[in-house]
Amino acid sequence: MEPAGVLPQAAWRLDADPRVGPDEVRVAVDRLNLDAASYRQLRESCRGRAEAMRAAVLEIIAQRGKMQNPVTGSGGMLTGTVEEAGPQSPLGLAAGDRIATLVSLSLTPLAITDGLASWDGRSEQVPCRGHAILFGRSIAVPLPDDLPGPLALAVLDVCGAPALTHRVVSELTRSAGPADSAAGRPVVAILGAAGKSGSLSAAAARRAGAGTVIGVVPTEAEEVVLRRSGLADRVVIADARDPVALSDAVLGAGGPADVTVVCVDVPGCEGGAVLATAQGGTVIFFSMATSFTAAALGAEGVAADVTMLIGNGYVPGHAQMALGLIRAEPGVRGIFERRT
Amino acid sequence: MEPAGVLPQAAWRLDADPRVGPDEVRVAVDRLNLDAASYRQLRESCRGRAEAMRAAVLEIIAQRGKMQNPVTGSGGMLTGTVEEAGPQSPLGLAAGDRIATLVSLSLTPLAITDGLASWDGRSEQVPCRGHAILFGRSIAVPLPDDLPGPLALAVLDVCGAPALTHRVVSELTRSAGPADSAAGRPVVAILGAAGKSGSLSAAAARRAGAGTVIGVVPTEAEEVVLRRSGLADRVVIADARDPVALSDAVLGAGGPADVTVVCVDVPGCEGGAVLATAQGGTVIFFSMATSFTAAALGAEGVAADVTMLIGNGYVPGHAQMALGLIRAEPGVRGIFERRT
Repeated sequence: MEPAGVLPQAAWRLDADPRVGPDEVRVAVDRLNLDAASYRQLRESCRGRAEAMRAAVLEIIAQRGKMQNPVTGSGGMLTGTVEEAGPQSPLGLAAGDRIATLVSLSLTPLAITDGLASWDGRSEQVPCRGHAILFGRSIAVPLPDDLPGPLALAVLDVCGAPALTHRVVSELTRSAGPADSAAGRPVVAILGAAGKSGSLSAAAARRAGAGTVIGVVPTEAEEVVLRRSGLADRVVIADARDPVALSDAVLGAGGPADVTVVCVDVPGCEGGAVLATAQGGTVIFFSMATSFTAAALGAEGVAADVTMLIGNGYVPGHAQMALGLIRAEPGVRGIFERRT
Repeated sequence: MEPAGVLPQAAWRLDADPRVGPDEVRVAVDRLNLDAASYRQLRESCRGRAEAMRAAVLEIIAQRGKMQNPVTGSGGMLTGTVEEAGPQSPLGLAAGDRIATLVSLSLTPLAITDGLASWDGRSEQVPCRGHAILFGRSIAVPLPDDLPGPLALAVLDVCGAPALTHRVVSELTRSAGPADSAAGRPVVAILGAAGKSGSLSAAAARRAGAGTVIGVVPTEAEEVVLRRSGLADRVVIADARDPVALSDAVLGAGGPADVTVVCVDVPGCEGGAVLATAQGGTVIFFSMATSFTAAALGAEGVAADVTMLIGNGYVPGHAQMALGLIRAEPGVRGIFERRT
């Protein structure tokens, strides 16, 4: 609705009218999953008081027609049941389908009708009643029957990372030709490998044929978790914000990396990721704390011929790949169950 | 010097000691070329008064040991003459060489000794006396004899853009196999094609085998300039901040683009660049005004399976390629001469 002409993600305010257009879908919402940065900001600014948090979220949604935190700019995702699909909707959904959306709440028209009465503010998962509108180019997937809801939500929230990691590593292993040993196969470093997107990306890298997966974690506690998971061939402790320490750690563990995957959520990791990567290699930035200029000028400043990818949250088949990994890899599932 | 442990680009303050380390080079500086964003900020905050501008630049350099504008974060480049090269310097420079640096002033140790007395503040090119230090991983190139200094500087300032554009388009044409017609060859859209990085990138795309080069410009005046240059097969006027208008314009000119190159310097072009690009295509962001999150969430939000590259300013051979283009392409040279 304003400003005119921009895409929904960039808009200040959306139209949350429940009537669906010919290619739209209306969903009866039962749960919002606020993204971590937004939830933390709300909790801190409201000093953890549930009533204030409910009021803050309700005011944002009423003002903006979507749940986009004006401070962080971020949103989250939702689950619900399809109520009505327009005749030209390409999403393949029918009334009664239980779904999760894979596009951000920051671009999804939304209205809440129950005052968030069931939310105690102690979790980023917000039970609610209301409706949301999906566009023709939105993405939604059926909720799996065989996984607990919170686990499935947590997996779907980060499913772009393993999919893009798999694609990039696969392209390298394909051009390297078949090989039975690690020799000649790509070295992949995962920064934040004991986290959600990191553990999925480590499993995806191995499945795509990586020769060595180096998991980088910030603490001894996370080192123990990652070693137990078996997801990485080598585990090292380093502060990803310290470029020399990080690149030394990756070099000492078999690097430099042909592919470095940035899954940590603190600012200032661009230089270290570039230095830990081989000339001709690739850095994939999934952290929303990435600075475009720090990456661009930082790589130039050390004459690093690295390809730097903005981690696109959408890759065809991403949801099914991530759900497949959590089903097949006990190491990934263990990390997620600890964290959800 | 502070904070400890970060790379020079991220540091607040550098050590500009003129004594060179074994792999360093000292340059007698004769000219700084402030980047456009930094120069504009300085001129506006000083209301264009030369004395205030000189004082502001001198204070930054004295405080920080480098010319990194604390407001914009950006720097620029410099020209000078090599005074001393450490015995282990890998840069291949010797005393007396006339060079330009291709790494940002924002990471180059620098001291000024003449009070910038010769600078009247009316140009981003700042005549000066002083010294700078190049590291082992810095990049510097000899100044060409056959081109006017200001023209060479302007070309070298943006030489990463045509080099990366050439690499990305070449990979597509190689995998497409040989072809004599435009059919089957990639469509490349250049946003800001009548500018410096844009005109070089358009010429590089054609040289790399693009089937159709679509030049997008914001005004009728730039449309005339671009048509005369002959650098684009199709020229369209669109506001790159208006995603629907931009994608309609590119579609109408033979798009969607297999490769979209963002060379405009205004914020808010991420969504339009993504929408103008074909599924499976690539967007290269060279604009320092690019928002990482807007690109990542925006592409996800429209289910766009596009590869998004952070425009690395360093590609091996980038300076020679850009200088070669300005020598060989009268269309590019005309645009640069209008602008320098």
